[in-house]
Amino acid sequence: MGKNIVEKIMESHLVSGKLKEGSLIGVRVDQVYTQDATGTMTWLEFEAIGLDRVRVPLAVSYVDHNMLQSNFMNADDHLFLRTAAARFGAYFSRPGNGICHQVHLERFAAPGLIALGTDSHTPTGGGIGMIAIGVGGLEAASVMAGMPFEFTMPKVVRINLLGKLRRPYVTAMDVILTLLKMLSVKGGVGKIFEYGGSGVKDLSVTERATITNMGAELGATTSIFPSDENTLRFLKAQGRQHQWIPLEADEDAEYAEIIEIDLSEIQPMIAQPHSPDNVVPVKDIKETKVHQVCIGSCTNSSYKMMKTVSSILRGRTVHEDVTLFINPGSKQVYEMLAHEGDIENMIAAGARILESACGPCIGMGGAPGSGQVSIRSYNRNFKGRSGTKDAFVYLASPVVCALTAIKGEIVDPFETDISVEEINEPESFKINDNMLISPKKDKDIKIIKGPNIKEVPVKEPLENTIHAQVLLKLGDNITTDDILPAGTQVLPYRSNIPEISKFTFKNLDENFYERAMNAKSKGGGIIVGGENYGQGSSREHAAIAPMYLGIKAVIAKSFARIHRANLINFGILPLIFVNPEDYEKVEQGDILKIIDLISGVKGSQKYVIFNESKDSSFEVYSNLNDREKELILNGGLLPYVRKKVSQ
Amino acid sequence: MGKNIVEKIMESHLVSGKLKEGSLIGVRVDQVYTQDATGTMTWLEFEAIGLDRVRVPLAVSYVDHNMLQSNFMNADDHLFLRTAAARFGAYFSRPGNGICHQVHLERFAAPGLIALGTDSHTPTGGGIGMIAIGVGGLEAASVMAGMPFEFTMPKVVRINLLGKLRRPYVTAMDVILTLLKMLSVKGGVGKIFEYGGSGVKDLSVTERATITNMGAELGATTSIFPSDENTLRFLKAQGRQHQWIPLEADEDAEYAEIIEIDLSEIQPMIAQPHSPDNVVPVKDIKETKVHQVCIGSCTNSSYKMMKTVSSILRGRTVHEDVTLFINPGSKQVYEMLAHEGDIENMIAAGARILESACGPCIGMGGAPGSGQVSIRSYNRNFKGRSGTKDAFVYLASPVVCALTAIKGEIVDPFETDISVEEINEPESFKINDNMLISPKKDKDIKIIKGPNIKEVPVKEPLENTIHAQVLLKLGDNITTDDILPAGTQVLPYRSNIPEISKFTFKNLDENFYERAMNAKSKGGGIIVGGENYGQGSSREHAAIAPMYLGIKAVIAKSFARIHRANLINFGILPLIFVNPEDYEKVEQGDILKIIDLISGVKGSQKYVIFNESKDSSFEVYSNLNDREKELILNGGLLPYVRKKVSQ
Repeated sequence: MGKNIVEKIMESHLVSGKLKEGSLIGVRVDQVYTQDATGTMTWLEFEAIGLDRVRVPLAVSYVDHNMLQSNFMNADDHLFLRTAAARFGAYFSRPGNGICHQVHLERFAAPGLIALGTDSHTPTGGGIGMIAIGVGGLEAASVMAGMPFEFTMPKVVRINLLGKLRRPYVTAMDVILTLLKMLSVKGGVGKIFEYGGSGVKDLSVTERATITNMGAELGATTSIFPSDENTLRFLKAQGRQHQWIPLEADEDAEYAEIIEIDLSEIQPMIAQPHSPDNVVPVKDIKETKVHQVCIGSCTNSSYKMMKTVSSILRGRTVHEDVTLFINPGSKQVYEMLAHEGDIENMIAAGARILESACGPCIGMGGAPGSGQVSIRSYNRNFKGRSGTKDAFVYLASPVVCALTAIKGEIVDPFETDISVEEINEPESFKINDNMLISPKKDKDIKIIKGPNIKEVPVKEPLENTIHAQVLLKLGDNITTDDILPAGTQVLPYRSNIPEISKFTFKNLDENFYERAMNAKSKGGGIIVGGENYGQGSSREHAAIAPMYLGIKAVIAKSFARIHRANLINFGILPLIFVNPEDYEKVEQGDILKIIDLISGVKGSQKYVIFNESKDSSFEVYSNLNDREKELILNGGLLPYVRKKVSQ
Repeated sequence: MGKNIVEKIMESHLVSGKLKEGSLIGVRVDQVYTQDATGTMTWLEFEAIGLDRVRVPLAVSYVDHNMLQSNFMNADDHLFLRTAAARFGAYFSRPGNGICHQVHLERFAAPGLIALGTDSHTPTGGGIGMIAIGVGGLEAASVMAGMPFEFTMPKVVRINLLGKLRRPYVTAMDVILTLLKMLSVKGGVGKIFEYGGSGVKDLSVTERATITNMGAELGATTSIFPSDENTLRFLKAQGRQHQWIPLEADEDAEYAEIIEIDLSEIQPMIAQPHSPDNVVPVKDIKETKVHQVCIGSCTNSSYKMMKTVSSILRGRTVHEDVTLFINPGSKQVYEMLAHEGDIENMIAAGARILESACGPCIGMGGAPGSGQVSIRSYNRNFKGRSGTKDAFVYLASPVVCALTAIKGEIVDPFETDISVEEINEPESFKINDNMLISPKKDKDIKIIKGPNIKEVPVKEPLENTIHAQVLLKLGDNITTDDILPAGTQVLPYRSNIPEISKFTFKNLDENFYERAMNAKSKGGGIIVGGENYGQGSSREHAAIAPMYLGIKAVIAKSFARIHRANLINFGILPLIFVNPEDYEKVEQGDILKIIDLISGVKGSQKYVIFNESKDSSFEVYSNLNDREKELILNGGLLPYVRKKVSQ
């Protein structure tokens, strides 16, 4: 039986499990990269594992998210990341070098490889025929420590492309917006989209990368294109032709589903507020008044697209009612645009050129005014993401964006007096890697941590007895926001567990932190919850902070899936009432005792809890799989990996 | 008797008073400009005056301070300023067009004129032979309403320049740093520095502007250069030769003091932390390790200086341990640099190009890391101004800065292997005013105010009787920070008096706001203070907010000078205990009654206060001059100007 591209790559990297949909598999990873917002914690976790060097062929630490530097914290983070990269053998991409996904595509991504990135838009690399998946920080750290990447094999869906785009009016952005309209933001959950068909050859690597980048908005695990002549052309232009391999699906490859798209029928599309799948043809809402236009980001910053934008702006002026921001996705593109007079065109037209970084796309500057309309060539338009709660954010191609910036209202490129130039892909890109610092050979490099960066605490292995106080009893549907709030007061401390722990349960109980610190030296604490404990955001800190505060176990009626995994990753035992009505038998302040834990975890997974304060007892159970048992016994994923790698 | 340049310009603009040192004079003003940080309040105040159009020949509203746009407020401010400029007949310089002082020098400043700006570095315009003075917002608003600018005539000090700078190693920045070393940050208080001598012709207009710009750091009212051939050359290059007039001091002009400087003896200088006058020769601290370099700002962003920086960076890479920020001072310079390949040089070298705005100079982004060393071609290095409290900020020329960025340590330009190119002033600048919106003719333009921008409240004329409660009794040395705190929680509300008023006295008394709002409808309130009431920062809001809350009078043992003036400007009567021991006769909560106020203000300025709660009385007085009496009777400067202009 023939194989699809995903199967071919997975098979060549498989180290455990059986390669079929729904199975847990483990694969060897070729490349891991981080960005600064998630990277500080990732590299602190890697440090806690205790290795001297990363154990993947390539690791890169990028800086692109937090670059405004409103206080000492950003610059301290950059210095920490640079020294950690030097210490552990990773490349460091200096601030200003560009957005991780675009720089990675330009300089490192290659067909047939598997890459992980600590950012949801990692699938950008799929444009070059690489399996590129976004993961959490601890996952990335353990893979950098040489562990396989373990995950459930998704369905592979084929997207069959036919025909050619009606360039320059229709772009790759319109392809992915069309798919979002068809499939919705949930349409890709549990799936990998594999592109194929005769239309593939119409798309350059950077166009493909726009499509795989925003595949994240479909909820897909990742998206991937074949590796063909266009891939070779791109690699050649980047001076990396030796990294090319051809890669295509066998004729008789099987797919869970096949979707057909005729590129020649695609129209200019636009996503309306407040979801990337709220898509309509541009012509349906043309002439809508606009206050702000943003062009760039990891989705649409290619040389070709930026040159197209420059040609539209040349000799014109941004409409009086509009602010136009442009953030080039990489120094390579920025430098080429400067060389060829395009930056001059943009400045002359009145564009505000921002640094080569994520910028307004993640609300890092460039927030629109109250109730204003912003059209962006970016990937997300969730309410409030722009930094302005009542703004109306639309997503469209750079062509639509640039025309709109000039006219002050939404423009259908097919119906305007401004002619749009068709720009060719360059024969060669300007290669200047002077902002990429190569891994150092020196193992004595000191990692520099500013006052707001602290080591990650690591838990001891599971003790055989828990003898601890119930520090808090909660109701149903407690969220990770309840456990550890987000917000501007808390987020700056994400690399400082001792400090961020002070906010644990703060919105529910002002005195929780004090009580927990008090109990920490006296055997620790226990949390009691109701149904669906830990729902909401996947934030790891909602497990790290309680662990740091000495919480040994959470007893609940049921757990939300991701938070339960996070509790286990940080060595906190998630216990479930055998009889939910026993929830009534325990109160805040009660002293509980659980004995014979180690044999319990290894064996029956049933435990009797003695409530010494009530002189009563009740039963709980844990439903850990084999890997989870290992993690709990070792004190969580960090000590587990630490033990594994030292073997 | 001959005249100096200052006297010549003042005389031609004099409308009241006698032109001699120490006298109160009034002059006609030709140009007024605002920047966004101070401009929102200025334009709200202008609106409150009630005129249709500005009554000065030229008004310009710039946006350069708050451009990060971390939430809706900046963009709302920009829209307010744009619509207010259109409504009231001012030019609007769109965000991205550059820093007010540099753009004004390029496009509007002219010899022989008087200009006011709502920013302390307004004296930049002195480089072209203009008297340019920084003022508060209300002052600017009343001058824009057609009132003369009234101030005490300062001493005029001649600075006699001889010789020539040892270019390209020594720059205009080194001249002003040398002066700061000689005279200190207090050396210019109550003075205008007038430059002259044979060395003047060695300096171009933009070099002169660097010197007059940083004359602000000497504490001077302003600084001014003659208008000569170099001035004509600059105006010609800006297409404004028709605005040239020659201007020089008469041979027998008199000065309060004469200082001589030989340009050929000046060395590369650097100001060490944390004051612009803590100056040493660069060679004394060469090889100091550096983490950050910043080049640009209103002090050092000329075409010539930026090209020099570009030539140093060309083909090199910013040192691995250094972050280099460059913020070009104007779109004109930025566009020319882009056209001539200099932006490409900078990007290629790894510089982080920021928008054409104030940026890191005012801590608006670009904060150094903890304890880091930053070398800047900017004008101030006060502790914490960079955004990082424990950073070490140095000030030096762009040449020293650029060399340092490459080497990673402080470099004396005379002792380095990098050769520095001498760049000529351009024959013509690129003139593209498309980011300057001309004043509109249409008077029906709607001023758009975001939810955080509210009208300025205007007080009623003085009532004949005050019958009010003592809302707060305070001790000695109450600061304007005590009255209205600053800080990130409060500052965002500076254009929203109802909201900012909630913080009045908040750090001293949590319930003050509530009590005051309660009393407001019942005759208002009175504050009682001790000695030196209102010391510290000059912030106007410490008078506006109490006025808004219905405070009718402050009774104290003595007042700090600036706050007393602000109280009068906003119609609050500053009353002084005739017998300081009467301070003991009044308590918080007492109901006080003062009658016959109007005849009192016009006449004896003595008042008997009946303390109804204590059934006692005591005497107070006001020591208002004639202008202050007028202001108090009318309810403050705003209603006073409003009345004047409607006559």
